[in-house]
Amino acid sequence: MTPYRELSKEQLQAMKGDLEKQFEEVKAKGLNLDMSRGKPCKEQLNLSMGMLEELKSTDKLKCETGIDCRNYGLLEGIPEARRLLGEMTEVAPEHIIIFGNSSLNVMFDTVSRSMTHGVCGSTPWCRLDKVKFLCPVPGYDRHFRITEYFGIEMINVPMTPTGPDMDMVEELVSSDPAIKGIWCVPKYSNPQGITYSAETVKRFARLKPAAEDFRIFWDNAYCIHHLYDEHQDFLVEILDECEKAGNPDMVYKFVSTSKVTFPGSGIAAVAASPRNLADIKEHMTVQTIGHDKINQLRHVRFFGGIVGMHKHMKKHAEILRPKFEAVENTLEQELGGAQIGTWTKPMGGYFISFDALEGCAKKIVAKAAEAGLKMTEAGATYPYGIDPQDSNIRIAPSFPSLEELQLATEIFVLSVKLVSIDKILEEK
Amino acid sequence: MTPYRELSKEQLQAMKGDLEKQFEEVKAKGLNLDMSRGKPCKEQLNLSMGMLEELKSTDKLKCETGIDCRNYGLLEGIPEARRLLGEMTEVAPEHIIIFGNSSLNVMFDTVSRSMTHGVCGSTPWCRLDKVKFLCPVPGYDRHFRITEYFGIEMINVPMTPTGPDMDMVEELVSSDPAIKGIWCVPKYSNPQGITYSAETVKRFARLKPAAEDFRIFWDNAYCIHHLYDEHQDFLVEILDECEKAGNPDMVYKFVSTSKVTFPGSGIAAVAASPRNLADIKEHMTVQTIGHDKINQLRHVRFFGGIVGMHKHMKKHAEILRPKFEAVENTLEQELGGAQIGTWTKPMGGYFISFDALEGCAKKIVAKAAEAGLKMTEAGATYPYGIDPQDSNIRIAPSFPSLEELQLATEIFVLSVKLVSIDKILEEK
Repeated sequence: MTPYRELSKEQLQAMKGDLEKQFEEVKAKGLNLDMSRGKPCKEQLNLSMGMLEELKSTDKLKCETGIDCRNYGLLEGIPEARRLLGEMTEVAPEHIIIFGNSSLNVMFDTVSRSMTHGVCGSTPWCRLDKVKFLCPVPGYDRHFRITEYFGIEMINVPMTPTGPDMDMVEELVSSDPAIKGIWCVPKYSNPQGITYSAETVKRFARLKPAAEDFRIFWDNAYCIHHLYDEHQDFLVEILDECEKAGNPDMVYKFVSTSKVTFPGSGIAAVAASPRNLADIKEHMTVQTIGHDKINQLRHVRFFGGIVGMHKHMKKHAEILRPKFEAVENTLEQELGGAQIGTWTKPMGGYFISFDALEGCAKKIVAKAAEAGLKMTEAGATYPYGIDPQDSNIRIAPSFPSLEELQLATEIFVLSVKLVSIDKILEEK
Repeated sequence: MTPYRELSKEQLQAMKGDLEKQFEEVKAKGLNLDMSRGKPCKEQLNLSMGMLEELKSTDKLKCETGIDCRNYGLLEGIPEARRLLGEMTEVAPEHIIIFGNSSLNVMFDTVSRSMTHGVCGSTPWCRLDKVKFLCPVPGYDRHFRITEYFGIEMINVPMTPTGPDMDMVEELVSSDPAIKGIWCVPKYSNPQGITYSAETVKRFARLKPAAEDFRIFWDNAYCIHHLYDEHQDFLVEILDECEKAGNPDMVYKFVSTSKVTFPGSGIAAVAASPRNLADIKEHMTVQTIGHDKINQLRHVRFFGGIVGMHKHMKKHAEILRPKFEAVENTLEQELGGAQIGTWTKPMGGYFISFDALEGCAKKIVAKAAEAGLKMTEAGATYPYGIDPQDSNIRIAPSFPSLEELQLATEIFVLSVKLVSIDKILEEK
């Protein structure tokens, strides 16, 4: 395809006329499509229905150490669930605490606790004049909303194909004691699907923070969420790296089964050093008598172990892979070579990241909405909802059916073309 | 029985000799008994086993408004769960938000949110020099631990047979703007089993707090937890009273099914005014994508509605009633008229409250431990674990079997007698 910028004004205008006609035709269908949320689809949810019948009314609901899972007790979770989620995130069970249904909630509580009580005895952040977090961008909007909610200043750090710009991270973290954390989705990142390289992880582990209470918020949300058997990204385990680098307490790892079993009815966990776990437990002991151990047991019985969980994830991949490929194929066919956008082709996770020409993202999302397609709000992948280039758009292919997705991607592509042509025409 | 104080030194010493022999005999049995925790027993847990099989793998798991309970969404809970817990706590469903498995967690988060973000726009409590809570005593240790954890100063307010001393509450709340809250278990209170009178509730509703962000933390933990059919306490609904009194925002009500279905695997809720709910939701939206809707649905399907829930609670009562009566009978037989202790005879809830002679509670609990009986730590029912009279002991009859309970109460009574005789002898 000829790059659009190389086309003449007249060619572009003719093209625009055709595209507008196509757009009006799609619009007339009165569609209602949604590519905005990383929500599993019906078929994915059906994969876990057996879990609901795992626990029979005649079962003894004791965990392997003999504790009755129906009653109070076991603040840190049942041993077999700690082992399962430990295997999921590649750490030993004693490094794991199991929580409720939402790892986001655990991250929120971690920031909230740091505000009111500090980190392992440090000054509570609410008593400091300034607290800052580094935010690799584009990133996950709900991370940014937590830090924004607590009045924490967010600093953009650009993502590269191997993870955040580590020169910038090292420079900032080592020089500014107000920087207390960094949000990371290290594997199949949201929204780009990038997995941090071994070098990046090692550089993280070797950081020399100016703040003793600096922590890496390592949201390992997509750790086993591969799309392909033969092409899987590999992420170096950071807890171990931090320990080897003499920084055992520098990282909290978060993980959950929200996109393994049921969103909202899964189990979440944190993995951390003994010192961090003790700090967390001091808070938890006051906050709750314990999390839902029956749901922990239900998960363990359903999967049997990590092998069962990996098998289960392959079934998810079979459903998700064609969806990702459908979007990627349409993008390639319709935009390949046009030089009006770039996009990622992740090997796992839930998103494709699209970068439009500068200043076009908001207009593209608005244009798509005209034809009944809901996209993630432009800017959402940046702190404060402000994408300085107004360029990034997150595409979530999981929820719609393949047929809907085909239509949705066509609308998206039409919107990209129309908005981009306008921009190029203006410049000519 | 002759009051012990009226016995002669010689009579007391002879009695002490006998009791010590009895105590040594029980001690020799090497028992391991526990009356320390308000934990349901096995038979109670068995009542809810059917709930585990409510949701079949072939069911459509949609709530009544058609939302798939397996997926993300519905921050405030599914409508039918809001209705059920609304009926449980006598408010309309639109006043209810459903949370996770622990109402304690909701209370903790409410205090935490007030610390970092204030209440409906008020100054965050962490920015104030002093924040105080009123604590009716004896009360629930885990309430007190929350306020202690956040550095909130706690002020004891004595309980009376009709609820907290309302003269003192009115005086303090209306004069001191640092007083931001009061912990209440208004029905079958922990540990006394007292239900606040209609007059008390109305006086609560008519409070004129000096602090605009003063809130009543109304932990309605035992709202439907009656022991008798024919003798049930009645509690006036406070949300409505507050509205009538022009104080619609002054109360948060908390409720859960922890002692209806499974401790740790129930569902919790808060009931509050529209303004408070909006304030809570602003926080929740950042904290989580939503709570476990499958567990909400499981609860609703199991009970059908509030009638089914009340029927279920009668089965709990049939298990608990004989236990309460066994303790009460032994106390009456062994201590009635001796004037070395008083105790409550609640019509519901989970506890019996025992008041020993001043200065004896710690010694009694220690004595009982010698013979293998674990009681709630003396002092636990007071803020900071300090009972100024060292007199109150909480008895939790639910968990042990009837047979164990019989033994446990005998040990307890022996311990009371021995410690009391020592005290009286010292004074003679």
